[in-house]
Order: sequence, then C-alpha cells, then structure tokens
Amino acid sequence: MAAAVMPNKKVVFKNYITGFPKETDMELVTSDTVPLKVPEKSTAVLVKNLYLSCDPYMRFCMSKHEEPSFVPDFIPGSVITSFGVSKVVDSGHPDFSAGDLVWGLTGWEEYSLITNPESLSKIKYTDVPLSYYTGLLGMAGLTAYVGFYEICAPKKGEYVFVSAASGAVGQLVGQFAKLMGCYVVGSAGSDEKVNLLKNKFGFDEAFNYKKESDLNAALKRYFPDGIDIYFENVGGAMLDAVLMNMRIHGRIAACGMISQYNLEKPEGVHNLMYTFMKQIRIEGFLVSYYHHKYDEFVEKIMPDIREGRITYVEDTAEGLENAPAALIGLFKGLNVGKQLVVVAHE
Amino acid sequence: MAAAVMPNKKVVFKNYITGFPKETDMELVTSDTVPLKVPEKSTAVLVKNLYLSCDPYMRFCMSKHEEPSFVPDFIPGSVITSFGVSKVVDSGHPDFSAGDLVWGLTGWEEYSLITNPESLSKIKYTDVPLSYYTGLLGMAGLTAYVGFYEICAPKKGEYVFVSAASGAVGQLVGQFAKLMGCYVVGSAGSDEKVNLLKNKFGFDEAFNYKKESDLNAALKRYFPDGIDIYFENVGGAMLDAVLMNMRIHGRIAACGMISQYNLEKPEGVHNLMYTFMKQIRIEGFLVSYYHHKYDEFVEKIMPDIREGRITYVEDTAEGLENAPAALIGLFKGLNVGKQLVVVAHE
Repeated sequence: MAAAVMPNKKVVFKNYITGFPKETDMELVTSDTVPLKVPEKSTAVLVKNLYLSCDPYMRFCMSKHEEPSFVPDFIPGSVITSFGVSKVVDSGHPDFSAGDLVWGLTGWEEYSLITNPESLSKIKYTDVPLSYYTGLLGMAGLTAYVGFYEICAPKKGEYVFVSAASGAVGQLVGQFAKLMGCYVVGSAGSDEKVNLLKNKFGFDEAFNYKKESDLNAALKRYFPDGIDIYFENVGGAMLDAVLMNMRIHGRIAACGMISQYNLEKPEGVHNLMYTFMKQIRIEGFLVSYYHHKYDEFVEKIMPDIREGRITYVEDTAEGLENAPAALIGLFKGLNVGKQLVVVAHE
Repeated sequence: MAAAVMPNKKVVFKNYITGFPKETDMELVTSDTVPLKVPEKSTAVLVKNLYLSCDPYMRFCMSKHEEPSFVPDFIPGSVITSFGVSKVVDSGHPDFSAGDLVWGLTGWEEYSLITNPESLSKIKYTDVPLSYYTGLLGMAGLTAYVGFYEICAPKKGEYVFVSAASGAVGQLVGQFAKLMGCYVVGSAGSDEKVNLLKNKFGFDEAFNYKKESDLNAALKRYFPDGIDIYFENVGGAMLDAVLMNMRIHGRIAACGMISQYNLEKPEGVHNLMYTFMKQIRIEGFLVSYYHHKYDEFVEKIMPDIREGRITYVEDTAEGLENAPAALIGLFKGLNVGKQLVVVAHE
C-alpha cells in the first residue's frame, strides 16, 4: 500500500549572508509534500515536528566558511535545521517506533526524514511541558549545567555575573548559582527582563546594560569586591568591563558572544592583561562535547523542576510562518526567555 | 666595636611614569653609605648583592596604581627592587649566617638590608653559575616550569608556539617542550635570536616577527595543522593571530604581554570568539603563587642542566651604572637571553 502523502510546509535558507540577518534570508515554502513512510530498507526515522528551537549559534550557519566551522553551514535552497522536539511517525531504525517522542537536530518543516537517528534522544519524562526539551531539558539546559558546574567550578559564597541573563541559558545559570549559595547579578537589555531576573529567577541584583553609560562603573556598583565567576554570553565591551572587575583566580566561561555575531569585525578586547595580573582563566566550551553528561543532567534537574526550585520562561512563536522573525528577534533581544517555535502541539 | 661603614652605590627610582620608560627615570646615587651590620635585636639580614635580575614585570612597578597591583609600585626616591643573588654579610635571623648565598627580592645597590628575610631562598647547588639563580634557577625558571607543565598541560606530539622565545622564560619553555616530544616553534625580534632558537635551544622552527607582514600567514606556514599550546609572552597582535590558529581544546598560558606594557591603551584583541568555537582555555598565572613548587623544580632540572639537556643564555650588563640601560633594553628587545646585571662577582 502506498504511503499517505502529506503537504510539508517548510522554511528554506536562501543564501549566505554577512552582517545582520533578515527574515528575507529565509523563505516559507508551502508547495512541498512528503510521504509519511521511511524509504524501503532505510534506517531513517520520519518525524512530525512539534517544537523548534531558535539558538544564537544558528547565525554561524548562515555564513559561508572556507574551513569547517564549529557548526555546519546551512545549504542554500535547503530547509533550515535546528534542535527540536518531534514525534516519530515511521521508523526504519530498531531504537525508534511510531509514537516515540524525541528531541535532537531536525528541520524547520512539518515533517522531517532524519537519516542519522542516532543523533536523536528519546524523551523520558513527559510530566513537564514537551517544549522544555528545546531549552531547559535540551541543549540550553545542558549548556548551563556543564558551563556553570564544570567550567566555572563554583564555590558557595562566590560572586557570579551572568550576561544575557534572561536568555535560554542565562536564566538557568543564575538559578544554579543561587542554589549553590552564590551572590548572582545578571545583565539584560530591557527593564522587563531585569524585573524577571530579580522577581522570577531570584537573582540578587540585575541591571539593564542599555541604560548604563559606563559598564565598568555598573559592575563596580554591584560587585564592590569583584567577580569570581563570569558566565559570558555577549562578548565585546561587556567582557572588557568584566575583565577589569575580576577577582584573583576568577573564571570566565565563554559560552557565546552574541553581541559580536553580526559585526563585520569583532570588537577589540583591551583588558586581557588582567588574565595574568589576576590569574584569570577564560575557558570556551561547546555543549556538543558534553553529550555524555545529558542523562546525569536530566536526573539531577528533574526533581528541581518538579519541586519548583528551578523555573523556566519561554517565548513562543506560533507556526512555521513566524519562525524566521523569531530567529531574527534573538539578535535584536526581542525574546523574553527561551525562544521557540510551535509547529504543532501534538 | 662599631661596624665598618661602606660606600653603597645604588640605583634610585625617580618618579612614576606613563608610556615608554627611559634610563633617566632612574638615577645612580654614589653618595650613600651602609654599616655592614644589622641593627641590634633586628631579625634582618644584610647582604652583598652579586647579580640582579631585569624582568618585564618591573615596568608595572614604575607606574602609580590606585588599587594594589599584582606587584608593589616602586617608591620615588627609593632604591629599585628586583630579584637577585646575594651573599649574607651579617644576619639577625636564625636561618641565615654570614657567608650564605641566597636569592630573592633585593635592592639595586651594593649592599641591602633585607628586613623580611623569609622571602630569601638559600642557594643549594653551586656547581652551576651563581647568576643562574637570577633566571634559570630563579623566578624565570619556575615560571617556565609551572607555566608549561601545569598551565599548558602538554602531551607528547603536540604543537607548541612560544613568543619572546629567546627570553628568560621562552628559551626554557621551548626546551621543556622538546624534552616532552612536542613540535616547537618560537618567535623573536631579530635574526640573531632566531638563529639561537634553532641552533642553540633546539626549536624545530623559529621566525623573526618583525619581518612578517602577516602574523596569521606566518603561523599558518609553521602550523598548517594548528597550535595546541601557546605560551604567551607578548600579547596584542600576536595573540590575535594565534587565536585564529588554535586547535580544538588548545591552551594558552598567559605569562606576560610585554608588547602592551608601555602603551597608553592596550591593543584590542578581536578573535576571542575562537575561545568557544575551538573550546580554548586561556589561563593567566603568576609565579609568585607557585613558590611551593620551587624545590621540586630545582631537583627536577638540576640533572638536565648538569647533563646538558637544558642550556641557558644570559645577557650580562657589568656594574650598577649599566643597570638602567639593561632594564630599558628589555622593552626594546635588545637583550639576547636572560638579562641580568653583575654588581660584584663574589
């Protein structure tokens, strides 16, 4: 019997860019169809996409790299790819069956044929919102977990600063730091986000960096004794100001530098002499290297979620047609919390 | 009986500076005298200075700092201080006796009264040149030892780059890396130094950075597969070029950044996004934190020195009157090897 063929709306990447990305760098295509069956003898998995993740790293996929980058470049004319939550419709792979809920790399389309299903993870706990697997229980959560606990090597009572603090990763780092007994300050780009940091996520203090004419002075106000740990999400001028305020043996976990992604040339950072003067460690990391920690992370965080010690704010765009704007919004700071796109609720 | 009183020639620091230091920022004073005895009931030690060390960190002592720096500011009108090798003339301290050879912080003068002799180390091995305790067996040697073996965490076969490679620390880092079975390239500022790196210290390759119009291209020539370890002594443009050439999980030990010390504003480093893209660790360190490793270091390196596996090149200025020029020469790259000053041979 021939498989049912369904319409398959998708968002396609148009062409490589420089500078700031635009919605028109992506195109909604409504004319495609997809058979709801994996090809004969294939080990692929056919999934229905439910939630898609918008992540800052995707900007790197939109530029052409001569040498392989840390993430693969998108292919012009092909569907955008990102992490997402999906439901298995048909499977040629022994580890997956129709009806399974999974998260992992998928396409910005209604149905995706995943040819390397080894990259997918089966969803174990469904007593939390499924969308959490795009963020809190997905890549962002694991990023915050390894970035804070492993790279920052925190100790109780230390002074912690988080930039882009209400974002997918930052809001968790702040909560982890509070659970560990640290003093935590976050920066964000609107008063609404600052309010969230203080009143929802429990940061000790927070400030709107757009209202500060002197970042060094702002940091000195909140950290009169200096910063032990900086969880770096933005780069540029903020990093320069942080370096001036680090304490001896301070640690900087370089998770990302979103303020720099759309510049022709990244800003210069002038205060690196503090690395030796204050014996500072700056360590960059990629969550893709820590996949082996995922199960440990989920088991550790589930009780914190269930018992309300960890909360999570999501910013949800409805429908694939709104996905390009949601992604571009990340670079304008329009999202409040983890940005995701709902393709279908089940 | 009254103590003999001796003339005590000294080099005095004149006043705090900005920008490039000059010989005239220091002054030779020949009119002082010193009694060759420690004051009654004092635990001080009176030493005769033999060899004095010229080190790049001393530039920081020549500027006024509002907050305490990682090294104390010099005091205008007072003698310049640095590490040196000295002979005890008189001692009020139970750990030291007349005739002992010591190394540690002393003054740029013929005789110094050391009021905190706990900071001095007794010299254990005298079957090597005593001047080695200003460098190879002093602070520079320990710096290279902890910087390379601890901060860089090297593995056999890794690709190592050292800047200011013929200097007091760099020449040792290169030799340590070769002993460990690494591939080592050094940069220096003259063809004479490049020759030394290749033919005396056994670097695999070396280049004169002043002859390279494109540091990135130079590094790509010597490291087609990238750099695992960068021992950072210079900062600025070289660090920026190195970041572009680091391999995944590369390590940068920030020992110093001499190219930046005399600038009004340090240069901007633009390529810090590689820290997360390549999962690079940049770690600054100060040798003063590793004093507890000194005995281990000396026991480990003495056989290497005696059996010729480690060699050391010194650049020796004769007499206190030549000390200011020797120090200034460091910042012009005039020294070939470890710069020191001979005050007296015994």
